[in-house]
Amino acid sequence: MAAAIRIVLVETSHPGNIGASARAMRTMGLEDLVLVRPGDFPSPMATARAAGADQLLRRARVVESLVEAIADCHFVVGASARLRSLPVPVVDPRKAAEMLWQRQSQAPVAILFGPEQSGLDNEAIARCHYLLHIPTATDFSSLNLAMAVQVVCYELRMARLTGTEDLPGDTDCIPASARELEGFYLHLEDVLTRAGFLHPDHPQQMKLKLRRVFQRAAPDQTEINILRGILSALDPD
Amino acid sequence: MAAAIRIVLVETSHPGNIGASARAMRTMGLEDLVLVRPGDFPSPMATARAAGADQLLRRARVVESLVEAIADCHFVVGASARLRSLPVPVVDPRKAAEMLWQRQSQAPVAILFGPEQSGLDNEAIARCHYLLHIPTATDFSSLNLAMAVQVVCYELRMARLTGTEDLPGDTDCIPASARELEGFYLHLEDVLTRAGFLHPDHPQQMKLKLRRVFQRAAPDQTEINILRGILSALDPD
Repeated sequence: MAAAIRIVLVETSHPGNIGASARAMRTMGLEDLVLVRPGDFPSPMATARAAGADQLLRRARVVESLVEAIADCHFVVGASARLRSLPVPVVDPRKAAEMLWQRQSQAPVAILFGPEQSGLDNEAIARCHYLLHIPTATDFSSLNLAMAVQVVCYELRMARLTGTEDLPGDTDCIPASARELEGFYLHLEDVLTRAGFLHPDHPQQMKLKLRRVFQRAAPDQTEINILRGILSALDPD
Repeated sequence: MAAAIRIVLVETSHPGNIGASARAMRTMGLEDLVLVRPGDFPSPMATARAAGADQLLRRARVVESLVEAIADCHFVVGASARLRSLPVPVVDPRKAAEMLWQRQSQAPVAILFGPEQSGLDNEAIARCHYLLHIPTATDFSSLNLAMAVQVVCYELRMARLTGTEDLPGDTDCIPASARELEGFYLHLEDVLTRAGFLHPDHPQQMKLKLRRVFQRAAPDQTEINILRGILSALDPD
């Protein structure tokens, strides 16, 4: 589905971050991972942290230069923790995901993540059409690399799903009809009147209050049956 | 800023996940972490993965039960990888974040994350007003726990930064706290057991079903008092 969106990890030091990034991509339906001069790869630590996304990891291309990594890409976004002086427009991950999906139908697109300590250098940033900034807390911006990959891949998946696919719903929960609810309310009022809880002369306000609670609950048919079963069990007569 | 949004990790096995979750929270401006029966905590591994968020980690409350963790919370969302048969409404992280921000101005709210292997059990889910589902790929839903925390905390931050309006007309209705709800459930179970409605040997499934109805209704304190008044009026003893 998402073959045209590439994740490029540039000079990643820790193999655990490579593995965790592969797993993050895989959970969000992405497949195309390119590693530019990784510090330690392949590595048992990377495989361990991939936790089942090892096929994606095995297929990852290892290249010597960023130029090679993005040679066929027509649109490049760089992830940046800092907001640089270079005049590259900065967007949040949501906007970036939207733009990446729009452009990937034409040709491959890429998102670059720099080294853990230093981030993307000016050479790399100069190759980006946009910078993507994850809006971290101002007093603690130390987002782990693989966490940043996860957030971006999540936004990519959300952008893909929006408007195209609904969340699986509660298909087994069909709210009771107004008629069934009405039957329950009558039953409730009858029992509560005979139990002396509802004042026979002016029950209206309390009846409305009770209806508000159960309308909000929007019980389904089974639940209405349970509630009426309770009323029968507690009926004072 | 976000003191009223709590992250609750239930029976987390791996201390690394606790540390990484603390770091994930901190990067997104959240502070309130509660650990229910953690497998191994405090732990050097947790501190290492917190990577600077160690103050947050030190302040994390360790408690013996989920009930204790959410006692003062008025709105509870559970993170779930699977979409269960229990009819709890399911929302995506974006919608959940919006709802949590709307509700946290009145009283503390919580997001629950279950154990790595099994997720939240039915007991925990029955205490949730909503389930939050991160829309993973259908063929690979193995999202790391701390990654899930990161995604949710990121959405909370995005929701805060983009700004959401308060729910209209909700200001006069403060939902009852988990403790007040618990008092009602105990009262309900007591009356129903003595009335012969709840089977004394295996009441569990019916109790969960009843909790679902009233969790959805999110009754306020006045409504809880009305419902308990009804129970007293209908008490067979």
